[in-house]
Amino acid sequence: MSQTPDSAVRTYIEQHRTAFLDDLAEWLRIPSVSAQPDHAPDVRRSADWLAAKLKETGFPTAEVWPTPGAPAVFAEWPGDDPDAPTVLVYGHHDVQPAAREDGWDSEPFEPVVRDGRLYARGAADDKGQVFFHTLGVRAHLAATGRTSPAVHLKLLIEGEEESGSPHFRQLVEDHADRLAADAVIVSDTGMWSEDTPTVCTGMRGLAECEIRLYGPDQDIHSGSFGGAVPNPATAAARLVAALHDEHARVAIPGFYDGIVELTDRERELFAELPFDERQWLRTARSHALHGEAGYTTLERIWARPTAEVNGIGGGYQGPGSKTIIPSTAMVKLSFRLVAGQDPAHLEKAVRAWAADQLPAGIRHEIVFGAAPRPCLTPLDHPALQSLARSMSRAFGTPVRFTREGGSGPAADLQEVLGAPVLFLGISVPSDGWHAPNEKVELDLLLKGVETSAYLWDDLAGHWRDAP
Amino acid sequence: MSQTPDSAVRTYIEQHRTAFLDDLAEWLRIPSVSAQPDHAPDVRRSADWLAAKLKETGFPTAEVWPTPGAPAVFAEWPGDDPDAPTVLVYGHHDVQPAAREDGWDSEPFEPVVRDGRLYARGAADDKGQVFFHTLGVRAHLAATGRTSPAVHLKLLIEGEEESGSPHFRQLVEDHADRLAADAVIVSDTGMWSEDTPTVCTGMRGLAECEIRLYGPDQDIHSGSFGGAVPNPATAAARLVAALHDEHARVAIPGFYDGIVELTDRERELFAELPFDERQWLRTARSHALHGEAGYTTLERIWARPTAEVNGIGGGYQGPGSKTIIPSTAMVKLSFRLVAGQDPAHLEKAVRAWAADQLPAGIRHEIVFGAAPRPCLTPLDHPALQSLARSMSRAFGTPVRFTREGGSGPAADLQEVLGAPVLFLGISVPSDGWHAPNEKVELDLLLKGVETSAYLWDDLAGHWRDAP
Repeated sequence: MSQTPDSAVRTYIEQHRTAFLDDLAEWLRIPSVSAQPDHAPDVRRSADWLAAKLKETGFPTAEVWPTPGAPAVFAEWPGDDPDAPTVLVYGHHDVQPAAREDGWDSEPFEPVVRDGRLYARGAADDKGQVFFHTLGVRAHLAATGRTSPAVHLKLLIEGEEESGSPHFRQLVEDHADRLAADAVIVSDTGMWSEDTPTVCTGMRGLAECEIRLYGPDQDIHSGSFGGAVPNPATAAARLVAALHDEHARVAIPGFYDGIVELTDRERELFAELPFDERQWLRTARSHALHGEAGYTTLERIWARPTAEVNGIGGGYQGPGSKTIIPSTAMVKLSFRLVAGQDPAHLEKAVRAWAADQLPAGIRHEIVFGAAPRPCLTPLDHPALQSLARSMSRAFGTPVRFTREGGSGPAADLQEVLGAPVLFLGISVPSDGWHAPNEKVELDLLLKGVETSAYLWDDLAGHWRDAP
Repeated sequence: MSQTPDSAVRTYIEQHRTAFLDDLAEWLRIPSVSAQPDHAPDVRRSADWLAAKLKETGFPTAEVWPTPGAPAVFAEWPGDDPDAPTVLVYGHHDVQPAAREDGWDSEPFEPVVRDGRLYARGAADDKGQVFFHTLGVRAHLAATGRTSPAVHLKLLIEGEEESGSPHFRQLVEDHADRLAADAVIVSDTGMWSEDTPTVCTGMRGLAECEIRLYGPDQDIHSGSFGGAVPNPATAAARLVAALHDEHARVAIPGFYDGIVELTDRERELFAELPFDERQWLRTARSHALHGEAGYTTLERIWARPTAEVNGIGGGYQGPGSKTIIPSTAMVKLSFRLVAGQDPAHLEKAVRAWAADQLPAGIRHEIVFGAAPRPCLTPLDHPALQSLARSMSRAFGTPVRFTREGGSGPAADLQEVLGAPVLFLGISVPSDGWHAPNEKVELDLLLKGVETSAYLWDDLAGHWRDAP
């Protein structure tokens, strides 16, 4: 009995879904938390596991690439047509910190399926979305009767994305020849909702820093000395309070220098999306909107730069009270950047601003992490049309276009490899990235497999389409 | 060979100092940290130890008085003259939290003597200063040939002073008849310096609170939601920043209502003390002065009300970074109060101010602790002259008068018992109260013993002096 290509793909996926999910669960059990030094062996184990699994999938080449930090995985499967385009899939195998006591209903590194959802740290961000490509390429081969993909397929799965990708740029530069590609597919974003599949066309950049403040050489008695010497916890608080003005605009001088402002057309496109404020607030687990005056919520999270406190600490935090002026305090800040913002310029602006804010007698130091740049996909690229078509076939509905508030090192790939970057993600906002009870919807995960299965054929066939 | 009373006292102290210090060290080994619930058994053990030791000293009555929190110790030794005044000595047997890793050079609950100083948590605040009365009364008896003291002597040593004395007022009210006294001697303060013995004539009051802020129901991704919802760590910081205006005056509306301002004469007396700014900063382990505009450092710490942050926390404080908007944040604040300020009025003012400052979408709750009131000793009371004379005999030099920035429940005793409060303390600013490496100078500790040995005779003899 003959099948359409689509039904052949679906049949193949249906036949292999159990093994696919078992393998994914095995990977999710590895707590590859790159931000915590004691998990470094787990991040290495995660890389080894993935390289072995990619070989098993059929990739002739699958290698663990060391970095001065956590290792990346590179894999390559040449296509049978030498003229076919080369596509590089990007994702990451490291995850955010997670602990049961943060509010998880089950162990974060013990995957469980409840109500059609797979719960585990990394289920959506990003192991699930990396892993759907493995079954995707097998379904593509099975449905088309090929023994190698319709494109030259490469994968680069890094191990430090959740730590700000401090060695990623160097890694890409060192291996630029082996990574060379005509297009980059980033599978580390989400879509609008279960009912509204979308392709993301841009991500914000990120700059992170920790500001450490030093007051008295040790904790001192707040009765004996209070009111007469500077308190570093107060200084930390005043610094954070000075981050925003009364319109919730970032008040660091020079912060907005050079940014590409939203056009009227972009603002219209955002406004056309079926945005439900109450639903969004539920997803955000928040109880009010709050942000830069003059912009909508979607504009604020997708296209405006921000400053947020990720952590603040100083003095006594245990039970009861302790009447001290603390010796030290610290704040961890992150800034989301949009096109036109330069991380080096931002760092300089933050340093000048902090030094200007702090009172005499409070010493400080600022440590900056790596800074993934913002990026945007050209809307008229034929590969974007291939991606939208493949996703439409999988979901049975036309796709729309969004942006993403989060950040990734995609801009480095675009810059070093000179290739356009496309975003293929099936995660939804309720998946709880970086939060307790992170999950992925199993239905959507399999739609990701299906999109991946259609994409390589479509890309190969339409690559030379005029824009 | 006949002796002067003073040399008899000194000889007695010299003969018994080793046993006295051994006993004190045994008491200091009990980590009676009232603020930490897991140390509750230690606080009880400390009370039992002290009651037993007071009996051994000769007090016919020594009882452990339970409270809904930590127990106090009461002891009584009636004098042989029924017309003698009754004196109540106040101190506390609980201590501040302490851990080696906070910066101690030796274990905080393993007392050691180095260079004539006894290092341990509680050495100065307050076990050492309570304990000198035990040898003091024995020396008084030995030097005068008495079998009971020249005054009716009572001790009340509470167990919750470092937790804000939440049950002290009730305890004093419940036992007002047994505590009845003509004067209260508080041994829980310090003096100007080793070379300048002083009597303190007033303490600031204290009000403490913890403000807990709740934003998103769980930590959320700062890329996906950042810039569009309120961040509780930012709200905490803005609250703290709003505590003071640009003149470092407390900016809570109503904060200064009703306070007794310093008179010109008081300001002159403060200005006459040998204040060395650089030396004071070294003692404060601080690197700049900072405080309310228009006041000197001594005025700021002794006679002006303050607001200080004792602790602040929220979000990720571990190594590396975590790009979240935290779900919760908290600040611990303490306010020092001066005469005329009403803790109940302050609590109301803080609640109104906080509610007014916080943005929509941030829920909050405020928990207030107990609030010891400020107090002042009448300068013309004959007991104050007895105290100054006794101290002068012990130190061989006239004493001056100061105030104290810290707080204690002395005002409750003054109020409930209707008795004047006097302060007998031998601690010096470098003793490191509430800080790592707390210590007491052994020479000064023994001057405390000596002062205590002279005081009861002098008080009995001069009690009826006209002011």
